[in-house]
Amino acid sequence: MSLPVAFLTDYGLTDEFVGVCHAVLARIAPDSRVIDISHGVERGNVRAGALTLVRSIQYMPEGVALAVVDPTVGTERRGIAAQTPWGYLVGPDNGLLAPAVQMTGGASLIVSLEEAKYQLPRDGVTFDGRDIFAPAAALLAAGEVEISDLGPEVETGSAVPLMLPLVDDSDGILRGEVLWVDGFGNAQTNITPEDMAAVGLKLGATVEVAVGASKYLVDWRSSYGDVEPGEGVVHIDSYGQIAVAVREGSASADFNLTASSSVVISSPQ
Amino acid sequence: MSLPVAFLTDYGLTDEFVGVCHAVLARIAPDSRVIDISHGVERGNVRAGALTLVRSIQYMPEGVALAVVDPTVGTERRGIAAQTPWGYLVGPDNGLLAPAVQMTGGASLIVSLEEAKYQLPRDGVTFDGRDIFAPAAALLAAGEVEISDLGPEVETGSAVPLMLPLVDDSDGILRGEVLWVDGFGNAQTNITPEDMAAVGLKLGATVEVAVGASKYLVDWRSSYGDVEPGEGVVHIDSYGQIAVAVREGSASADFNLTASSSVVISSPQ
Amino acid sequence: MSLPVAFLTDYGLTDEFVGVCHAVLARIAPDSRVIDISHGVERGNVRAGALTLVRSIQYMPEGVALAVVDPTVGTERRGIAAQTPWGYLVGPDNGLLAPAVQMTGGASLIVSLEEAKYQLPRDGVTFDGRDIFAPAAALLAAGEVEISDLGPEVETGSAVPLMLPLVDDSDGILRGEVLWVDGFGNAQTNITPEDMAAVGLKLGATVEVAVGASKYLVDWRSSYGDVEPGEGVVHIDSYGQIAVAVREGSASADFNLTASSSVVISSPQ
Repeated sequence: MSLPVAFLTDYGLTDEFVGVCHAVLARIAPDSRVIDISHGVERGNVRAGALTLVRSIQYMPEGVALAVVDPTVGTERRGIAAQTPWGYLVGPDNGLLAPAVQMTGGASLIVSLEEAKYQLPRDGVTFDGRDIFAPAAALLAAGEVEISDLGPEVETGSAVPLMLPLVDDSDGILRGEVLWVDGFGNAQTNITPEDMAAVGLKLGATVEVAVGASKYLVDWRSSYGDVEPGEGVVHIDSYGQIAVAVREGSASADFNLTASSSVVISSPQ
Repeated sequence: MSLPVAFLTDYGLTDEFVGVCHAVLARIAPDSRVIDISHGVERGNVRAGALTLVRSIQYMPEGVALAVVDPTVGTERRGIAAQTPWGYLVGPDNGLLAPAVQMTGGASLIVSLEEAKYQLPRDGVTFDGRDIFAPAAALLAAGEVEISDLGPEVETGSAVPLMLPLVDDSDGILRGEVLWVDGFGNAQTNITPEDMAAVGLKLGATVEVAVGASKYLVDWRSSYGDVEPGEGVVHIDSYGQIAVAVREGSASADFNLTASSSVVISSPQ
Repeated sequence: MSLPVAFLTDYGLTDEFVGVCHAVLARIAPDSRVIDISHGVERGNVRAGALTLVRSIQYMPEGVALAVVDPTVGTERRGIAAQTPWGYLVGPDNGLLAPAVQMTGGASLIVSLEEAKYQLPRDGVTFDGRDIFAPAAALLAAGEVEISDLGPEVETGSAVPLMLPLVDDSDGILRGEVLWVDGFGNAQTNITPEDMAAVGLKLGATVEVAVGASKYLVDWRSSYGDVEPGEGVVHIDSYGQIAVAVREGSASADFNLTASSSVVISSPQ
């Protein structure tokens, strides 16, 4: 019984890159179901890819995650496979996998993908997704190799971490950052409900949201439905993070928020 | 033997929303084949989603349709599952499913998706596609529940209908509307071949197509191939509706047609 | 045991065209795995579709290729199915399949898809992907027909070829053309490593790349990683062709290269 493969890249869907990796997966693991998490990660944005993967992996069936956002392809950075209680994560060692590895229980083993016999032969430069990562993921999914067959073990502590911004709550003010703006314009922050509680903010209260020099008064409510269409709201989003949203509208447009924007939340003065 | 699931949303493919719903489907119904109808419905456009679903469902293998275009998510609108001779349709009760329910024989039973034990637990607001609709669709596809397990029955007549524009043929003039402009620029109208016959228009005739103040003389022909490249044509499209097209070109651009544009077809004066 | 189907079109993913073809495949060949090569081929660009198909097919599991880029749909052009040592290729007879047929060993048999009983009935004009090509591909994948059941044999030599530009190496100067610019901005040319050798260019050398009136000096190196970020490089790409790239940047933008651009490579004067 083959394991399912969850597949995430920044390849986009215009070129055939995603399709060719699907083909490699199908040849090696013909019974493995492939779930496309997304191939629309901003090109080369490792942080955005890592955040997408960590948000998604908790919903994926246990198996193999194949993730490629790899702006330094063609250089000396390693490719790795990590084993966690959830399964296997395969991709470049640039921090992309790190939050998902941690979220799924931490790595018991990490190997460097150096064993040439488990890679596709090619002329010219490597297309690592096709030639190295997809074969490794498929072989693990099909149960045809042990992870340790794929290359030498590396110290788990040597894998490249991903630095995520911490919330600063000094002076009773939450200084955070937008992690993600989705296609509907909702802005997820790195601020948690626990952070809100720590500075005395309560569900139902009006809070001040400062974005650059602009300040907005917005209610913290349970849901979009608690405010009028077109009105802003702070709420706990479906991933459990504090988000800024506009009912039937775009918080990104109305509050001028993009990924990495600073957001300061406090009690109104 | 699991049923296939046909899946339609306005989520787009940039975020991981579609992927996460696929993951939920795969966990609950691992043997069910998922067919992505489209995830490119204009955001929040319930009518466009309903029309896409009704055009497509006749081609889908019998099973489960999961459709989410839901501008009022987070408010009190119900989620429903409907049973028809074709199978099951799952989504918000906002008119999205109504034409497809009717097209597939009408609902023998509709339930309100209220049974919490068949929904995913979550922090914060609901991501209804992931937490309510995908689990319901997957449970029905896997045969793990009866539809009546998912929540209380509602009167079939109480489901929200979708209002579609009717063709007015008074005075021998067909006053209709563009339902859909596809990516090639073809404009499908709500006018049928029967409407054309009712006002005496015949295949092969030249007809006047009025769009706003502009009037065009166009032949009604069987196919693109009957006119020259770059020339306009009225024809019966592959769904059986009267459409305006341009051979190797875009009727949308040349005739200034978009979804909901008024189109008046008549015999030339 | 059903064969896998590799599926390529210029339909895009906004409309439901791809989804409906998947549905037709699933109804006729429910056990056949479908691999989407890409549906993002530039609309109506047969050459771009043919090049995408020939780059991809060597990675696809043996089976059926279904390809539709068909600007003259609705005219008299034939639909064909070709049998090669790899499997079956199905699509319009406009050159789209020709390079892939050749790459996979040449056609032992080509038939014209004329047998109406293996096509979907429809009102109005044909949606050939849905009504003719997908059913033919699915029936071949499911093993439910012989290729000769689908229509009369045609002379293999009568299938429409695809004209690809040849490299001119007179005077020791390589006059070639860009075949493809991928989403990362890498520009693949029709020049091969053998062409480079024929004019005395060697890996490691600095070469002159002329694009229109602009001339650039660029190193021919093994990989992106051999130059600095932002710097241009000529290398053998992952398909074995000579390509112009910029490490962590876009050769398309920096060198003003698009598909069909002329590229002249020579030793610096």
